[in-house]
This record gives sequence, structure tokens and C-alpha cells, in this order.
Amino acid sequence: MKLYNSNLAPNPRRVRIFLAEKGVKIPRIEVDLAKLEHKAAEFSALNPFQTIPILELDDGTRIAESIAICRYIEELWPEPNLFGLTALERATIEMWQRQLELRLLLPIAQVLRHSHPHMAEMENPQVPEWAAANRPRALRAMAIVDEALRDRPFIAGDRFTVADITGLVALDFARPARIAIPQELANLIRWRETLKARPSATA
Amino acid sequence: MKLYNSNLAPNPRRVRIFLAEKGVKIPRIEVDLAKLEHKAAEFSALNPFQTIPILELDDGTRIAESIAICRYIEELWPEPNLFGLTALERATIEMWQRQLELRLLLPIAQVLRHSHPHMAEMENPQVPEWAAANRPRALRAMAIVDEALRDRPFIAGDRFTVADITGLVALDFARPARIAIPQELANLIRWRETLKARPSATA
Repeated sequence: MKLYNSNLAPNPRRVRIFLAEKGVKIPRIEVDLAKLEHKAAEFSALNPFQTIPILELDDGTRIAESIAICRYIEELWPEPNLFGLTALERATIEMWQRQLELRLLLPIAQVLRHSHPHMAEMENPQVPEWAAANRPRALRAMAIVDEALRDRPFIAGDRFTVADITGLVALDFARPARIAIPQELANLIRWRETLKARPSATA
Repeated sequence: MKLYNSNLAPNPRRVRIFLAEKGVKIPRIEVDLAKLEHKAAEFSALNPFQTIPILELDDGTRIAESIAICRYIEELWPEPNLFGLTALERATIEMWQRQLELRLLLPIAQVLRHSHPHMAEMENPQVPEWAAANRPRALRAMAIVDEALRDRPFIAGDRFTVADITGLVALDFARPARIAIPQELANLIRWRETLKARPSATA
């Protein structure tokens, strides 16, 4: 197997952290986003949606989408479990994974893509009004997550799951997006520090 | 159990079709999006992200996010299988479900939300430039999906899965978004007709 990766983008980082938590190493092929390699014909032939990461299996089958890749990894290396064991736990983790992805990571990414000068070529056209509309959404999501973390150490309950990975990656992506995490969100900040302290965070 | 529903929105429709394919009936509570009931305090207490659908279990536990709900339903009623059986099939279905959601349904929804006069109150601020940026993305995704369907009847392979549900709901949402499906996308149109002909499509 091999993983098409970039150290600049949040989605490959989700897979790298997931693999580190599993203790699994997969050879990587670096895709240079700054050179728009993901939009070139060669990469488009691998994934016409032009997104990374991609996991390529030994028979040439390719799996795109970070969470699809993580699910596949979980089936091959079930321990430690990161997607849940019971029906309700699986649904709860899936709910939080999606909420953190769609309501937190996505708005933060929209702010970056539509406001940062470095993204002008990659995100064409940039729509500054769309960046502005997403900034308060990201902050609102942070406040909701802070409240959810009031009574538990991890976002889906007592233990670390794939949903926490999405949360850490989203919060770390707030810095290049120039969104300051409000100091009063003590639960959120405590959670982030816990996640950052795990060895997997630097994967 | 009960399902918080709206017949106006695409995401609850995904769950209704999924339930119909399983032959499962769950009582519904209607949420009036036109009256912004989903943004009122009462609904926010159920789901602070203010999204529908929500599945409420008999003990009061609530599961938000359509695909999290569908996964829970799949665990309770495994037949017919809609999320895949082997590791690779599960990953492939997850990949397509996500691609159809993020690269097709989401851009179409952005066009509707940011261009339709009826959405001015719900989507505040509307950003017309963002609608314009998403129209070509939706059309590009349609062309990619058309190409993928060249050699198979359903998007993830030989049989109907949850990914097809997302595809049908996305394509049907193109009409209110005033995006015409290009006539030359014969595979896409054939697929859509096949899906529309299933009894579940009217759920």
C-alpha cells in the first residue's frame, strides 16, 4: 500500500494521525499542492476530484477520502478501536466526526481558502465575503464543542476516537486561517492540549 | 424512536429513503424550516448545530447527522445491506458516499442557499458570488460521476447502496437550485432514472 500525502493540508494529517494511533506505517508519495500537482492530469487520473489523501492498494485499487481510508485501516488493524464497538457508540462517534468536519473544519478551511493570499491560485475564485461569513460559524462551532466537552474528556465520550482526530486537525487549522480560539473556551482548550500531547499529533 | 424531519430539505430525505429501503417505519416529528423552527431555542436544545434530521431513541439519546442515523439503522436492521460487507466494499461505498455528498450535494446546496430568494432569511448573509463559484463545481462533479457510471449500474458497483441515495437526493436538489443536468451525461441520467424508479424514491 501507499499513501498520497501532503504535509500542508489538513485531510492527509487526519490519516497520518490515525495510522500513528494504530502503530501502522505506510509508505508515502508526496503531492506538492503549492505546485498544484493535485490539479495536474497525472494526479487527476488517480482521483478526478483532485483531492488528497488517496490510499493505493497493492493491486492498484485506490481509496480517496480521509475517513474512507481510516475505516479501511480500522478493518485491517482493529486495535485500538477508533470508530466504536456498539451500534450506539459507532453512531455517536460518526455524529461527532461529521459535526467536527462539517461544522468546524469546513468553515475554518473556507476562511483560509477565501482570505489567505497564498490560496489565491488554488482557490479560484476567492470570495472574501464567503470567508467573512464562515468566521462566525467557526467560532460558534467552537463554543458548541466547548459546551459538549464540559462533562467528558473526549468529544464522543470517555476515550479517544477518530472524532477527536478531526477536532484536533480543525483547531490546529484555525491558526493559518487566522482565527483565534477564544480564551474563555476552557474545555475546548483543555481538550486540544490533551490531544496535542499524544505522540500521534506530530505524525 | 422518532425522527425529526422536514420534507423540504435534502438530508432528512436521505434517511427516509434509507428507511424505506429497509422497510422500517419510524414516527416523525415535522420541523418547519420555513418558520425557522430549527433555529429556535427549543430545537437548539435538541441539536445545538440546528440541523435536521435527528433520530431520538426511546431513552432520549439523540443522534444527529443523516449518515450517522443511517449507520445506526443499518446495525439494527442489517438487511438489505447498504454500507458494504467486506473491508474494501465498505471503504468504496464510504468513498463514494462522501464524494457525492461533499463534491455534488454540497455545491448544489450552496448554489440554492446563496442564490434563491426564498433562502434569504435562512442563509444569512447570502453570498451570490459563492453561488456562482459552486455552479461549475456541481457541473464538474456531475461529469465525473457520469464517467464513473460508464461501466457499472450503481455508483459503488453492481448493487444499490447508501451512496446511491446521496446521489439521487443531490441530483433532485439541482432543480430548486436551477442547475440543469447536461443532456449529454447519459450514464448519469440513466442512473438517476433507475434510482427514481425505486419505490423508496418517494419516501
